[in-house]
Amino acid sequence: MSESNGKAGRIVRAPEHFVDPTVAHEITQHGLNAARRGFLRQSFLAASAALASGTALASASKMTDGDPNILTLPEHSTTLGKPVAANPYGVPSRFETNLLRRESPGLTRVNAASVSFTPLQGLFGIITPSGLHFERHHQGWHDIDPSKHRFMINGLVKNPKVYTMDDLMRMPSVSRMHFIECGANTAMEWGNVAVPTVQYSHGMLSCSEFTGVPLSVLLEDCGYDKKNGKFVLAEGADGSGMTRTIAIERALDDVIVAWGMNGEMLRPENGYPLRLVVPGVQGVSWVKWLRRIEVGDKPYATKDEAIHYIDAMPDGMYRQYTSIQECKSVITTPSGGQRLLDKGFYNITGLAWSGRGKIKRVDVSVDGGKSWRTARLETPVLSKCLTRFNIDWTWDGSPVVLQSRAIDETDYVQPKINQLRAVRGTKSIYHNNAIQSWQVAASGEVSNVQVY
Amino acid sequence: MSESNGKAGRIVRAPEHFVDPTVAHEITQHGLNAARRGFLRQSFLAASAALASGTALASASKMTDGDPNILTLPEHSTTLGKPVAANPYGVPSRFETNLLRRESPGLTRVNAASVSFTPLQGLFGIITPSGLHFERHHQGWHDIDPSKHRFMINGLVKNPKVYTMDDLMRMPSVSRMHFIECGANTAMEWGNVAVPTVQYSHGMLSCSEFTGVPLSVLLEDCGYDKKNGKFVLAEGADGSGMTRTIAIERALDDVIVAWGMNGEMLRPENGYPLRLVVPGVQGVSWVKWLRRIEVGDKPYATKDEAIHYIDAMPDGMYRQYTSIQECKSVITTPSGGQRLLDKGFYNITGLAWSGRGKIKRVDVSVDGGKSWRTARLETPVLSKCLTRFNIDWTWDGSPVVLQSRAIDETDYVQPKINQLRAVRGTKSIYHNNAIQSWQVAASGEVSNVQVY
Repeated sequence: MSESNGKAGRIVRAPEHFVDPTVAHEITQHGLNAARRGFLRQSFLAASAALASGTALASASKMTDGDPNILTLPEHSTTLGKPVAANPYGVPSRFETNLLRRESPGLTRVNAASVSFTPLQGLFGIITPSGLHFERHHQGWHDIDPSKHRFMINGLVKNPKVYTMDDLMRMPSVSRMHFIECGANTAMEWGNVAVPTVQYSHGMLSCSEFTGVPLSVLLEDCGYDKKNGKFVLAEGADGSGMTRTIAIERALDDVIVAWGMNGEMLRPENGYPLRLVVPGVQGVSWVKWLRRIEVGDKPYATKDEAIHYIDAMPDGMYRQYTSIQECKSVITTPSGGQRLLDKGFYNITGLAWSGRGKIKRVDVSVDGGKSWRTARLETPVLSKCLTRFNIDWTWDGSPVVLQSRAIDETDYVQPKINQLRAVRGTKSIYHNNAIQSWQVAASGEVSNVQVY
Repeated sequence: MSESNGKAGRIVRAPEHFVDPTVAHEITQHGLNAARRGFLRQSFLAASAALASGTALASASKMTDGDPNILTLPEHSTTLGKPVAANPYGVPSRFETNLLRRESPGLTRVNAASVSFTPLQGLFGIITPSGLHFERHHQGWHDIDPSKHRFMINGLVKNPKVYTMDDLMRMPSVSRMHFIECGANTAMEWGNVAVPTVQYSHGMLSCSEFTGVPLSVLLEDCGYDKKNGKFVLAEGADGSGMTRTIAIERALDDVIVAWGMNGEMLRPENGYPLRLVVPGVQGVSWVKWLRRIEVGDKPYATKDEAIHYIDAMPDGMYRQYTSIQECKSVITTPSGGQRLLDKGFYNITGLAWSGRGKIKRVDVSVDGGKSWRTARLETPVLSKCLTRFNIDWTWDGSPVVLQSRAIDETDYVQPKINQLRAVRGTKSIYHNNAIQSWQVAASGEVSNVQVY
């Protein structure tokens, strides 16, 4: 029997809150907490095992740690539980309260203009639960009354129009799964190793199924100027007046004026009741609380694309209008702050994505990039969407460095950090898609390292 | 400009609670509530429109309903909003509090052994938000401590084993999207039209991305008897001791011992920390709070498959072990209880699914089945997963009957209710996959009808 002895096979989760080291280690989401574990005292399992076979019985006795009361069933197997709709809108287990999006205090001067990060280390598959979708606000979030919200299209159009939510929601709609990543994700790593956990290094990344009307349908509805309309400006209704330019080719391609996210209406902090979905492009262009699209004949060079979201280059110049999130991947388990408590088999798992299309392949190295094996990709593999990868690994207990490297359908290969720095220097904030390295020490501690 | 006049283009949502007609109509989720709507008084939009162009200004003035204060921006455009991580685990907007899973009081004697239905009429795409996943409990739900939970495999196996959650979560895992439908979904419709809304007629249906270890891996790990092992029994840890037989071929195919749902751990009411995922098969076999799999040489004929979940046939006999959910579809908007408030364009949308594989095609009729048009299927179209369909429709204001008809990759065509009744009679509870008809009256009221 494989009943663990209290040490076997566990990955101890990270202290989630890296900023303040005095915060007590909040170790686990998934019953992986050694302190909370106990040996099996009152368990159906002992009972079942005792009844099953001699072999099972022998092992079950071991499991009970000497407790003679091995036939007692747990309370949940003998009582009437809670009724249906006890929570008409359900919430996670009381044992999962440590899995939260978390701010990095001090990152910005005002916490209404800050970031909260998605806890990638505790998530599975590709769908991000909406309650854990990362946040990046420029002037905080509001819960806007949808019956009062209006969306306007103006500029180089024959018929400027104002739409209510009702007007939009009766129009032809599409549903598509896409990742959204902040252009500043992994920003702290340009200079050096900066943060210990994947939540803070890569957690400005989420993925959802979005529903809305294609922007192309709305632009046609307003009769946009096909000759002179070269760009659109998207504008949000929050206090920051977020504005971003998008080329008309992209606007007519796969951009969605969306109200739905993972089956329900957008969450307020993600733009309720309306946001722009710009697949493959950095999150800042996915304008939240969307109130206006203007068609124009040149880029707008607004504050949010002239002094923010520009790439510092080594020569002191800045690159502007770099919007696409290039091919990238990261191992989410094991990852920084976790601990392997013994040798043996592990499932290495992580995420890969590309703003250029589909992921073609993900390789994983357990020797710091000297050799690579190809991981299994979970299906569906979708364009401009997260792809989950998994690969078997047996740890022999010696120190190793884990890496993943994604290749997209354009054959672009995710670069090493020194390759990126050779071109981009170390002063940038945006668009760091380098290979991530996690070091596993002989103690089993996993930490963030940079390997060239 | 298309600014609606307070009547145009709206689908007024149903009173969600059909059982008690004295409950006040709770009309809307999406700003579709005529009572709540007002004309635009203090709006950015008026301001933006006023600045945009002559045309826009003229219409914007109409929008303000005579209010001279057209340049006043709404509060959310002029103030600092809430900070990031204000809700470390986010929740829906305060304007969406009517979109809930709902019990049908009186359906069962004890509400811990009842059903709560998913509000399909208010959902988009294919992913069901985990907070709105339908519930069907046999003895209520519990929030089980995962560190104490054990999973055993015994019976015809070389090495019976007991697994902790840690043991399972280090094993090779897969992530896949599948629908789950209760075998009793649409049960009330065998006899006659029974319930007014799609939440109650089809709401024992949800769809999620599930993550876990393939059962085949675990059976191999225990050395199951390849000669004599013909069936497995799955057993839950709740008080009902739910037990279901599954043929070994299916168990080795695509069945998953799952802990993950839509990116995070299962919700308690959906089996936390472990449930069986049996793609294409009725929900009762997706045993929640999974504690044991036994390998045997014949079906177990337990209470949950001998006296429950059997199909009453017209000759007084019962069909047993009918587990697969056959090809089915339903229009979710417009649907029963909603009201179209004017003529004109609408997006008809709905869901299709098949326990046999992928959906090949969905046809929609707006004349009670006399003629059909083929709907657009949203991608991805996955095996044993919901598929979202959309189709354009212009309503001329006359009474019509809306229907959808799904065809799966085996070329099975969803039947009419009279075709099903010809074979199965009217006394059954389970496996009603008939075509659903929604009647739109000249008043715009949508109601549940049966059309032969």
